[in-house]
Amino acid sequence: MKKIVIIGGSAAGPKCAAKAKRLNQENEIEMYTNENVISYSACGLPYYIEGIVDDIDKLLIRKPEEFEKQGVKVFLNHHASKIIPDKNTVIINEKEVLYDELIICTGATAFVPDSIKNAQIEGVYTLRRVQDGINIKNKMEQSKSVAIIGAGFIAIELIEAFVKNGIKVHLIESTSRLMRILDCEFSEMIMQHILENSSDLVDMHFNREVDKLHQNEDGHFYKLSTKCGLEIEADFCIIATGVRPNVTLAQEAGVKIGKTGAISVDKTMKTNYNNIWAAGDCVESNCLLTNRPIYMSLGNIANKQGRVAAINATLSPEVHENFDGILGSAITKYFNYKIATSGMTFETAVQIAQRFNLDPISTTITKKDKAGYMPESNPVTIKLVADKKTGRFLGAQCVGTGDVNKTISTMTSALQSKLTVEQFLHMDLPYAPPMSSTIDALLTAGYKLNSQIKEIQI
Amino acid sequence: MKKIVIIGGSAAGPKCAAKAKRLNQENEIEMYTNENVISYSACGLPYYIEGIVDDIDKLLIRKPEEFEKQGVKVFLNHHASKIIPDKNTVIINEKEVLYDELIICTGATAFVPDSIKNAQIEGVYTLRRVQDGINIKNKMEQSKSVAIIGAGFIAIELIEAFVKNGIKVHLIESTSRLMRILDCEFSEMIMQHILENSSDLVDMHFNREVDKLHQNEDGHFYKLSTKCGLEIEADFCIIATGVRPNVTLAQEAGVKIGKTGAISVDKTMKTNYNNIWAAGDCVESNCLLTNRPIYMSLGNIANKQGRVAAINATLSPEVHENFDGILGSAITKYFNYKIATSGMTFETAVQIAQRFNLDPISTTITKKDKAGYMPESNPVTIKLVADKKTGRFLGAQCVGTGDVNKTISTMTSALQSKLTVEQFLHMDLPYAPPMSSTIDALLTAGYKLNSQIKEIQI
Repeated sequence: MKKIVIIGGSAAGPKCAAKAKRLNQENEIEMYTNENVISYSACGLPYYIEGIVDDIDKLLIRKPEEFEKQGVKVFLNHHASKIIPDKNTVIINEKEVLYDELIICTGATAFVPDSIKNAQIEGVYTLRRVQDGINIKNKMEQSKSVAIIGAGFIAIELIEAFVKNGIKVHLIESTSRLMRILDCEFSEMIMQHILENSSDLVDMHFNREVDKLHQNEDGHFYKLSTKCGLEIEADFCIIATGVRPNVTLAQEAGVKIGKTGAISVDKTMKTNYNNIWAAGDCVESNCLLTNRPIYMSLGNIANKQGRVAAINATLSPEVHENFDGILGSAITKYFNYKIATSGMTFETAVQIAQRFNLDPISTTITKKDKAGYMPESNPVTIKLVADKKTGRFLGAQCVGTGDVNKTISTMTSALQSKLTVEQFLHMDLPYAPPMSSTIDALLTAGYKLNSQIKEIQI
Repeated sequence: MKKIVIIGGSAAGPKCAAKAKRLNQENEIEMYTNENVISYSACGLPYYIEGIVDDIDKLLIRKPEEFEKQGVKVFLNHHASKIIPDKNTVIINEKEVLYDELIICTGATAFVPDSIKNAQIEGVYTLRRVQDGINIKNKMEQSKSVAIIGAGFIAIELIEAFVKNGIKVHLIESTSRLMRILDCEFSEMIMQHILENSSDLVDMHFNREVDKLHQNEDGHFYKLSTKCGLEIEADFCIIATGVRPNVTLAQEAGVKIGKTGAISVDKTMKTNYNNIWAAGDCVESNCLLTNRPIYMSLGNIANKQGRVAAINATLSPEVHENFDGILGSAITKYFNYKIATSGMTFETAVQIAQRFNLDPISTTITKKDKAGYMPESNPVTIKLVADKKTGRFLGAQCVGTGDVNKTISTMTSALQSKLTVEQFLHMDLPYAPPMSSTIDALLTAGYKLNSQIKEIQI
C-alpha cells in the first residue's frame, strides 16, 4: 500500500489517479486541483463555443463523485504552495500533506506576451480552462466581431467556431503566417483555403505586433493597436499565443527543469527525485527523431504520460512501462479542411541538418484520397521529408478535404518505426474504391521521394 | 531501345505499358488484350451497378487513344495462344510477335465451381469484366430479386448495390459464414449489422451447397436448389465464389507456376525466364509475415507489381526496384459500415503456429473513433493479433461505422515495419477531438494486448 498524491486535475492528473487506483485498490490516492472542476477536455472547448458540443457538461469526462466512488479522494480549489522532498511532504492550503509518491501534473497556463499593453482589461480572454470556454461563448453570443491574437491551433479552431456563429474575425499575428508548425507553403494553402471559404467573415493581418489593447469608458476592450499603427476594432479579444508550463512549484523544490522550460523527466516519467514523478503539460518530452527535449502541450500526450507515471509510481520496476517520446504529431481542421503534421518540417530539418548530420530532402504531391470516379473523393496534399543520407523519413505534413487523418496516422506509424522510404515504397495499404485510390496518395508521394533520393526518375 | 510486349490490358498491363514508355521514350511497347476495353477499374463495378458511379465510362481509366498518343501500341480483341521463349516470340492471333522483354499480365477469371450444375444458363452472371457490370446493371433494372452464391468481398459489395436499388437478395454460402478472410466473430458482427439494417431485403443461407441452377421454358434462370433440398427463387443469379489466375499461356511455355496455382516470380517480378516477367492477378505474392507465397487478386497489388515489372524490364539492374510482398490487406464497406483486415487472423495464426513457431495471442476492443462528446463519433471494433514469443504484431481486423480505414492503415504500417506491441504502445498518433479520442482506439487495443503478453493487468 502506498499513498500517492497527485497535484493537478485536468488531464494527466485524473488519468494518474484512476490508473493508480485500478492497479492496486489498496493504494491511497489523493488528487488536488486549484480549479473547481477536474477531468475535462480542454481541446473540446472550441467545439463547445462553436455549438457542436451542446452542453459544457459533456466536456467533463469524469466527475469528482466518480473518482470518490472509485476510492480516489478529490480536493477541488486546493492550492499546493510548496514541496518538501526531504520530508515527503507537500504544503496544500497551508497544511502538510505526506506522500509516498508524488505526481506533479500542474499543467500549463495560457501565455500572454508582456509586450501587449493593457492585456488584463475586461473583454479580453484566453482559452484554457472550462470557465474560459463558458465566458467566451457567452461573450460571443452578445457580439458581432472578435480580434484573435495568434495564428496557431487554437486560433484556427476558434475562427471556425466564430465563423459558424456569424462573428466577424480579425486575426492579428506577429509573424508572417498561420500555423508555423507546418512548412511555409502549407501555411499559405491553409490561409488561402480559409479566405476562399470565409472571406466575408475573416480578415488576417500578418507581421503586425500588437502594442496595446484599448478600453472604452466602461473599462471594456473595444480596439487594439499594433506597433505599426494599425487599429482594429472588435467587440472582444482573444489572446491565443501559446502556453507556458506551470513549473514554479516543482522548480522551487529543486525539481530539474529542462531546456524547454518544462519539467525534465526520464522515460519512466520520474523527475530527479526518486519518488517525485511528473506528467502532462508541465513536462517536456523526448523527440523520437532527434533524441532532444521538445515541449508540446496536448491532451493525448498528457494521458499517455499520466498512464505511465501511474504505472511506475505504483508497480515494481520489473513491470515498469516507458514513455519513449513523441514525434510532434498534431492535427486540426477548419470545417472539412484538415491540417496535420508528424515529425519534422522541411524547414526544421534544414535548420538542424548540420548538427544532426542530415541531408534533408522533400517532396509534395496532391492527389485524390479515393478512386477518382467515386463522387466523395477529395484531395489531400502531402509533403514527405526524409534524410537523403540514410533514406529515413523525418516528417510528413498533410492538408485537404480528403482523408488527412488516415494519411498522417499511417505516416506516424512509419516514422515511429524509423522506416526508410524504400521500405515504405510498396506498403500494402488496403484498397477499395470508396476508401483509397489504387495507388494510395501516400505511396505516390513515397515513389516521388524515392526517385529524388535515387536521383533517377522512376 | 527495347521491344516490350505486354499480354493483358486490365490493370497491371496498362500500368506496365505507361511506365515502360515513360522510363524510356525509345522503347517500343505493344499491349495486347483479348478484351474490347483496356485500363478499367474492375473494383469499381459494384459502385456502377449501385448507381454511385453514374457512367461506365468513368471506370475506363485510360482510353486506347491515350496510350497510342503516348506511343504505346494497343491491340484489342487479340488472343495470345503460345509463348516460345527460345525464340523470344509470342503467337498472337496466329502471327509471330517478337519481343525483347515479355510481361505477362493475363489476370484472373471468375471461378464457377464444377459442382454447380447448369451454371451456364441465361440469367446467371459473374462479375469481373466491364461487360459483366453492364449486363448485371441492366438485368437488375428489370428485376425484383437476386440470388448471390458466395459471401466474400464481391458479395458484400453487391448486396449493398442491390439493397440500395430495392432488390431482394438471397445469399447462399457453402460455408458457415460471411467474409472468411476475417475471424469468426467478425463474420458474425458483419452479418448482424447487415441483417439489422436490411433484414427486409436480405436473406442469408449458410452451410448450403448449391446443387443446381434451374431454367424456365425460355431457358432463363428462375431458381436454384441446394444439396439439402432448399429451393430459392430469384429473377437472376450471381456466382461470386472467387477467381482463378489465368496461367495456361504461361504454364504451357514452361513458366513456373507456384503452389497457389498462380505464376511464381521473384522480387523483381521476373519468372524463371530471364526476359519474361509477370504482374497482376495472374501471379502469386510473397507473404511478408510468413515468407510463403499467397495469392490475392486486387487492383492495388496489380498496379504496384505492374510498376515494378516495368521498371525492371526496362532499366538496368542497379536501379531495379523490388516488390517484397504483401500483408493480405483488404477493405470494403456495407454502406457506412467498414470492414478491413491486414496480416493474419487469429484463426490463421493458430493454424500455422506450430509450423512457424508462433504463440498467437489476440485482443478485441470496441471504442469510439473520436472524442465521445463529438456528435459524429462512431465505434470501431478492433482485433489485434500478436506473437507472444516475440511480441510482434501478426495481424489486425477492424469493423464499424467509425474510422476503420485510418485504423487499419496505421496498423498496416506497423505490420510492414515488424513492430512489436511494446514499440507500438505509445505511438504518437495525432489527436484532436473531431479526429480521435485522446487515447486512440488502436492504442487502447495495444495496451490491452500488451497486458496479456506481459500477463499482468496494466
